[in-house]
Amino acid sequence: MKTQQIIYDKKFDLHFINKYASLMALGNGYLGLRSAYEEDYPDQTRGMYISGVYNKSSVKGTSELVNIPDITHFHFEIDGEIFSLLDGKIHSYERTLNLVNGEITRRIVWENRFGDRFRFCFQRFVSKNDLHLLALKVTVTSLDKAVTFNIMTGIDAQQTNFGNQHLTEENVRVFDEEVMQGIYETTESGHIVAVTTSCSYSIKGKVSFLAKNRKLQTTMEIELPQNTPFIVEKLGTVYSSLDQEYDGLDPQTAGLNALHAHNLIGYDKLMKKSAHSWNNFWQKKRVKISSTNDFDQLALDYAIYQLESMTPAHDERFSIGAKGLTGEGYKGHVFWDTEIFMAPFQLFTEPETAKKLLRYRYLHLDQAKEKAVLYHYKGALFPWESAFTGKEETPEFAAINIRTGKRQKVASALAEHHIVADIAYTAVQYYQATLDDEFMKKEGLALLKETALFWISRVTEVDGKLFIKDVIGPDEYTEHIDNNAYTNYMAYYNVEQAIYFMNKYADQNQTLLNEGQDFLNRLYLPKPNVDNIIPQDDTFLSKPEIDLSTYKENQGSQGILLDYSRQEVNEMQILKQADVVMLLYLFPDLFSKDVVSKNLHYYEKRTIHDSSLSKAIHALVAARCGERKLAYELFQEACLIDLGPKSNSSDEGLHAASLGAIWLATINGFANLSINRKQILSFNPELPENWREITFPIQWQGRTLNITITHQNIEIKNVRGPELTVEINGKEYLISSKLDVLLT
Amino acid sequence: MKTQQIIYDKKFDLHFINKYASLMALGNGYLGLRSAYEEDYPDQTRGMYISGVYNKSSVKGTSELVNIPDITHFHFEIDGEIFSLLDGKIHSYERTLNLVNGEITRRIVWENRFGDRFRFCFQRFVSKNDLHLLALKVTVTSLDKAVTFNIMTGIDAQQTNFGNQHLTEENVRVFDEEVMQGIYETTESGHIVAVTTSCSYSIKGKVSFLAKNRKLQTTMEIELPQNTPFIVEKLGTVYSSLDQEYDGLDPQTAGLNALHAHNLIGYDKLMKKSAHSWNNFWQKKRVKISSTNDFDQLALDYAIYQLESMTPAHDERFSIGAKGLTGEGYKGHVFWDTEIFMAPFQLFTEPETAKKLLRYRYLHLDQAKEKAVLYHYKGALFPWESAFTGKEETPEFAAINIRTGKRQKVASALAEHHIVADIAYTAVQYYQATLDDEFMKKEGLALLKETALFWISRVTEVDGKLFIKDVIGPDEYTEHIDNNAYTNYMAYYNVEQAIYFMNKYADQNQTLLNEGQDFLNRLYLPKPNVDNIIPQDDTFLSKPEIDLSTYKENQGSQGILLDYSRQEVNEMQILKQADVVMLLYLFPDLFSKDVVSKNLHYYEKRTIHDSSLSKAIHALVAARCGERKLAYELFQEACLIDLGPKSNSSDEGLHAASLGAIWLATINGFANLSINRKQILSFNPELPENWREITFPIQWQGRTLNITITHQNIEIKNVRGPELTVEINGKEYLISSKLDVLLT
Repeated sequence: MKTQQIIYDKKFDLHFINKYASLMALGNGYLGLRSAYEEDYPDQTRGMYISGVYNKSSVKGTSELVNIPDITHFHFEIDGEIFSLLDGKIHSYERTLNLVNGEITRRIVWENRFGDRFRFCFQRFVSKNDLHLLALKVTVTSLDKAVTFNIMTGIDAQQTNFGNQHLTEENVRVFDEEVMQGIYETTESGHIVAVTTSCSYSIKGKVSFLAKNRKLQTTMEIELPQNTPFIVEKLGTVYSSLDQEYDGLDPQTAGLNALHAHNLIGYDKLMKKSAHSWNNFWQKKRVKISSTNDFDQLALDYAIYQLESMTPAHDERFSIGAKGLTGEGYKGHVFWDTEIFMAPFQLFTEPETAKKLLRYRYLHLDQAKEKAVLYHYKGALFPWESAFTGKEETPEFAAINIRTGKRQKVASALAEHHIVADIAYTAVQYYQATLDDEFMKKEGLALLKETALFWISRVTEVDGKLFIKDVIGPDEYTEHIDNNAYTNYMAYYNVEQAIYFMNKYADQNQTLLNEGQDFLNRLYLPKPNVDNIIPQDDTFLSKPEIDLSTYKENQGSQGILLDYSRQEVNEMQILKQADVVMLLYLFPDLFSKDVVSKNLHYYEKRTIHDSSLSKAIHALVAARCGERKLAYELFQEACLIDLGPKSNSSDEGLHAASLGAIWLATINGFANLSINRKQILSFNPELPENWREITFPIQWQGRTLNITITHQNIEIKNVRGPELTVEINGKEYLISSKLDVLLT
Repeated sequence: MKTQQIIYDKKFDLHFINKYASLMALGNGYLGLRSAYEEDYPDQTRGMYISGVYNKSSVKGTSELVNIPDITHFHFEIDGEIFSLLDGKIHSYERTLNLVNGEITRRIVWENRFGDRFRFCFQRFVSKNDLHLLALKVTVTSLDKAVTFNIMTGIDAQQTNFGNQHLTEENVRVFDEEVMQGIYETTESGHIVAVTTSCSYSIKGKVSFLAKNRKLQTTMEIELPQNTPFIVEKLGTVYSSLDQEYDGLDPQTAGLNALHAHNLIGYDKLMKKSAHSWNNFWQKKRVKISSTNDFDQLALDYAIYQLESMTPAHDERFSIGAKGLTGEGYKGHVFWDTEIFMAPFQLFTEPETAKKLLRYRYLHLDQAKEKAVLYHYKGALFPWESAFTGKEETPEFAAINIRTGKRQKVASALAEHHIVADIAYTAVQYYQATLDDEFMKKEGLALLKETALFWISRVTEVDGKLFIKDVIGPDEYTEHIDNNAYTNYMAYYNVEQAIYFMNKYADQNQTLLNEGQDFLNRLYLPKPNVDNIIPQDDTFLSKPEIDLSTYKENQGSQGILLDYSRQEVNEMQILKQADVVMLLYLFPDLFSKDVVSKNLHYYEKRTIHDSSLSKAIHALVAARCGERKLAYELFQEACLIDLGPKSNSSDEGLHAASLGAIWLATINGFANLSINRKQILSFNPELPENWREITFPIQWQGRTLNITITHQNIEIKNVRGPELTVEINGKEYLISSKLDVLLT
């Protein structure tokens, strides 16, 4: 059933240069590398990032994921002419990202302006089994004549984040006339970064080295005979002082030692090792879809491949940025995206990693408490955006309005408080999927209690009821509203679960228990109105509507903000993403199927999907409603958010939450897996007509389950672990090793 | 006699892209603009600089001349294809810098890969009459078909100094859907920079604006008919808070107001105004040479054109960097180059500007005194490198030795003390050429007394004699030596002149007068040895010699340091530049002609000329020795330091002192102008055989003299001012309005 797992770039086109640099980004959760070409082109944004290495370039700025010095750039000269695909003629061009083994290959036959042809093959990977290793291989063959071939490459610390400088050059070295190393320090956060690299050549000529203007370069020149492949391998290692804190390695020594070891092995064998790790990944986590449209499989493979590449499974001190490690969008900051969109994939395939993502929040409870104090709340108010320190990193002001010169205050950090409950929700999900009491007693309970305390302090009493006023829900086109459905229900759940686990673990904080119970008794929860519509907030349903069709056609572009001010948008029934639909996703049993369906359609009509987090969740909820056709259409559209034809859609990185949501739509939507009220794993499959079969693995309470669903049948293999009860279409079954149930 | 005053770039070649960006740099002393192409190419270094705007990008760094946001970049698309000269086919290409009017013109006929031809004409200038104005004009004609033509341009603040960030973006604005403005602040020095620009189009299409990632861009798209020239004019203004301090203008308002005014006038008329100012310059300052080799005239025109472009004649708070405003070499710092190599051109053509350069030193006497105190000396120890604050800016450490990882301490700031006397020397020269008692009583005397005091405190007493120990002379290949001939003679002159002017103005500081006289009585001055060779220092003549011919062939490259360590070079008779020859230049009457000639030859043989300051001075001294052939050869070589064929010689900016020295070699060498012991203007012409005639203007003690020299004759016109005495070949003449003397 294995279909093609390859992402293609079939045409050299500068318009797509940064889209493909993001799409084909390589990573291993520690290191992320944009797939800029080896040779330079105008406006090409190179980027390499280390998970957790953030810095502020100015006192007034916020932390950015640091674009570290580059080693992928090569300058080639052939008989003194600089190689560029803009020059001469391209006979053939193909670049592929092979998801199976994580390697990029670019094959070109190119003719220079004098009519001489050359074959180039560029390969590279970021190692999956050695987090610190990246490697490049270039094979050049001169097809028509012997030439003088000249290479210049090295370590380029002129890299900035769009002009923001984060690193000072502390030292640059050449060891044994071979190995180059640069040591850099972030200007504010004080992290040390060591980049170490060397080249080996199949034909060796005159080599020289030069350090200048933040570049350490080596130059090599050979006489290249006709039809003789010339191979350059460039291996590199990246270490930071964060590794040192963690495992005691001094980055400089570690980088050198590792590179020496890698040099003895060489590109091909190192690549094989990495490919082996990727093979393990696919064995363990792949969702197989038998669809009439092969793209479904590719898009899903791509989604989890990139999720894997950007998730710091090695370290609990960092989480996943909104663009992962694929670009500088959102400055690498961590949002609710991690818990609500990306963590579930980890939770159900590698719960240890989900735990680390929650540990990241736990380790920053102090900063969340500090933020709560700052705003005169109690408990933990997690930052809307965070980075390494766990402090609020949301920029204080939005981008300048270039017509007025004014910067609007960013309201998210002040009011988008649902993230607090999102984290609590995921902690509970983690427990339900793992029954990890050790975590829940310590980290889980701490998170639940402090977040519950926040909500208790967050309410306003109105005539005996408790309101949550002046918040922003996930829908950022409706700011500063009262009793946001998503927020209120999530807060309720948060406090409810805190009490549940406090009781479970006999927590003695009676005050909190009492206050929590009072909160639950009195919190206002928006109910469906006479038309069965759940009001997104107190005023939403009374606002005027406009025809959104043109904006929906250009969804993702925020084009509405060119025609209307943010204030105007705020006062209409216009949604960036639908809070109520999000709520319906997270609580499948909260409302009747009829209410769910009504609300999906009501809000879908009013949702532009200007957030990349939106579409796949609508697909998921539509699937649950049994609206398979709509669900599949929405799913397919969601798969195009990054992989679609728009030339600049992903220039600043991939939409990480959207990738997570593609997996969610598949598993929680079409396979319709959920955890029911009895905390039993439940399936109510709603496969699209185009899909014949779906097979996927699930980690559940210590068991490994392999699930295969067709339109007729569901088969669950309990590969490892004791028997368990599952629910299928509302009926409970006990599985010892295998279960087969007909779906009627 | 007017020969071609045009610098040509006749071939599009990426290898020369940064050389020509420096060579064709435009400037007006306030603003400097590298001539990078409008469209982007790999490794092209754009650069725009404001005189005096320096900043430190990190606490540990030194100040750099800030590369301010760029407005010269244009991105063009033709039917959706990005314009690049690397692509398609170049039918014709020529870029010219017209020294007459200061305009750059690039004319191209280019064929895209689909066979459609286009004519491009790019013009630009930095205004000579309005210091804040720069302007670009692009004319595009589609020769074969109607096309969709798309332009993107704006203000790009992603510019850094090779990765060092100096500016934060404070505000970006679009006014009236036309004018773009960016306000930036330097991160450490706190200067505000306002860059304002707008485009006008001969055919106007859909215009939009976008601010993102430190870029403010406008996009414009039109349908361009065949054979219809489409003209874009982009005007820009640059203001800084330094202007505000000076003339009260707020940079934001000033920039906007000026741009609005310029927009009413347009490129062509603004260009004419600027050309008019350049015409005045040439009228006033041009040296006309009638040579068998036209290049002599071009090189000299080029030298003074660029000197003029980089000299901040408008402001006394700044001086001239070692690369002027043409690049980031030496970080824009001010060295002795200004006083000894560049100031004389100003002094003899526009003494007011020479005074400002001296005022710059005077205004920073406090910082020089602080440096003296730091090193336990008295008086004023001027920094070896300085920038805006007047403090020592020499980097503490030299570039890393990439083999050892060690940075050598830069000794210049600690020991290259001759700059103190260089400044004093120029103050005296200024007085002699102007008789400006007002300046000399105040600034001149203060400079002379404090510098004299420094020397008095700088000596070591050995057996009753005073030695100046542990210095570096101009020859930086010989460090930490005692009794450097250049330094000791200059120090003597410094103290001598201080006493002279103290007596002249009845200064009452008897202690200083006494100490000064004692200094003069006892200072050791190295005398010619039995072979008539003046020892460069106490040990130089006893050091071993090696054959330097291969290094002399690659002069300027510092290739010797690849074969020998700095320490090894220090212990041999190897000169970067010859101190004694410098001394002979500055004091023409100090030694007999025979001694001068002997020393020139002795030291020339041992000098690699790895300093660009060296060659033209040897030409000058050779001319004075009557060795016209040698002098002319050396002069011609000096003219090639920037204008020669080496592809990367000037990447980081022009060799400003060398440009000054080309003028010196001509005027003080071949025309052999000097100020004799009686402070009478003296001529002893030694024209090269290739030169038939030389004509040049001189400002001298309030008079304007026009001097014409042939091999037979010297003619001096006293255009303005009272009669004066001059000396010609040792004989005095009185001129009222005109003097004609036969040279025999």
